[in-house]
Amino acid sequence: VPKVSQEHLDARRAQILDGARRCFAAHGYEGATVARLEKEIGLSRGAIFNYFPSKRDLFIALAVEVNTRYRGLIVEGGVEAAVRGAAAEDPAWLGVVIEVESKLRHDEEFVRRLDAQAREGTPQLVAWFEARQREGTLRTDVRATDLGRFVTMVINGLALRVAGGDETDVDATVRLLHDALASRE
Amino acid sequence: VPKVSQEHLDARRAQILDGARRCFAAHGYEGATVARLEKEIGLSRGAIFNYFPSKRDLFIALAVEVNTRYRGLIVEGGVEAAVRGAAAEDPAWLGVVIEVESKLRHDEEFVRRLDAQAREGTPQLVAWFEARQREGTLRTDVRATDLGRFVTMVINGLALRVAGGDETDVDATVRLLHDALASRE
Repeated sequence: VPKVSQEHLDARRAQILDGARRCFAAHGYEGATVARLEKEIGLSRGAIFNYFPSKRDLFIALAVEVNTRYRGLIVEGGVEAAVRGAAAEDPAWLGVVIEVESKLRHDEEFVRRLDAQAREGTPQLVAWFEARQREGTLRTDVRATDLGRFVTMVINGLALRVAGGDETDVDATVRLLHDALASRE
Repeated sequence: VPKVSQEHLDARRAQILDGARRCFAAHGYEGATVARLEKEIGLSRGAIFNYFPSKRDLFIALAVEVNTRYRGLIVEGGVEAAVRGAAAEDPAWLGVVIEVESKLRHDEEFVRRLDAQAREGTPQLVAWFEARQREGTLRTDVRATDLGRFVTMVINGLALRVAGGDETDVDATVRLLHDALASRE
């Protein structure tokens, strides 16, 4: 049996997720047929479904990846980096994410996976806000948890605007969000 | 021909919209069959479709009504009233609104109706923010349009949380939003 390196497996997985994202953005969730997924990803259905047993699994992996990425943007680049990241997203892709996430709200597997990810990632995010509070950059009269939730609300609200093709002044958004969170001293 | 008063027509229309909202919330958009709509509204399909020729028209009217209502909440009760209104919404109903609005993003009639409503309502909302800037309550270093958009983002982000059943501290949200918008002097 030929041995396949972890690197190769990871690269394949990334190739599949990238292609699937493009395919969902171009055709919507329902319109992303297996034939279209094969073409956009550049792999056969056998190879794809070896990694993700269903289209739903593919979408769940992408949804988890989106959330992880935004958490990473905040922790590594601060709140502004995450806001600018959301503003620069492909509207079509955001539209699909919002539509399918709300449709899958009653799907047990989806909720279980996103909850598991939130349980894993939220403490890291809250710790980031707490560290900024300790160093005096962020206000301390509102809990770090609520600062994080407010940032998430603004980013999600911005994502809805981007998905809807609504004009938004990103600099103004960054400034208002900054002033909401900044230390009052 | 018996004459029907405008009052009667308006009351009927409100009855239909209320029942349809409950039906969509309980069964989702797809699950809201004509039989279920009849039962929840308490009128025959003939009577209902006299006002709204299709389920899509019913939904569009509800979506327009949601937006109009939030604009009214801001103009009459201020930003805080609108935030508290969103926090108190039925999660199931918000879930349906978010799902179907994103699905109808490519529906010409839907986009046309929401755009018409936005063209009509946005100036009133911007005027409200401008008046608060003139009286010195709201900051003037960010355009009234961008203040309004920021409020919309926070309310929509909050709606996504409510629809997802995510815990939110409404008082903290109100306070952070207030401080983002408040005059710096």
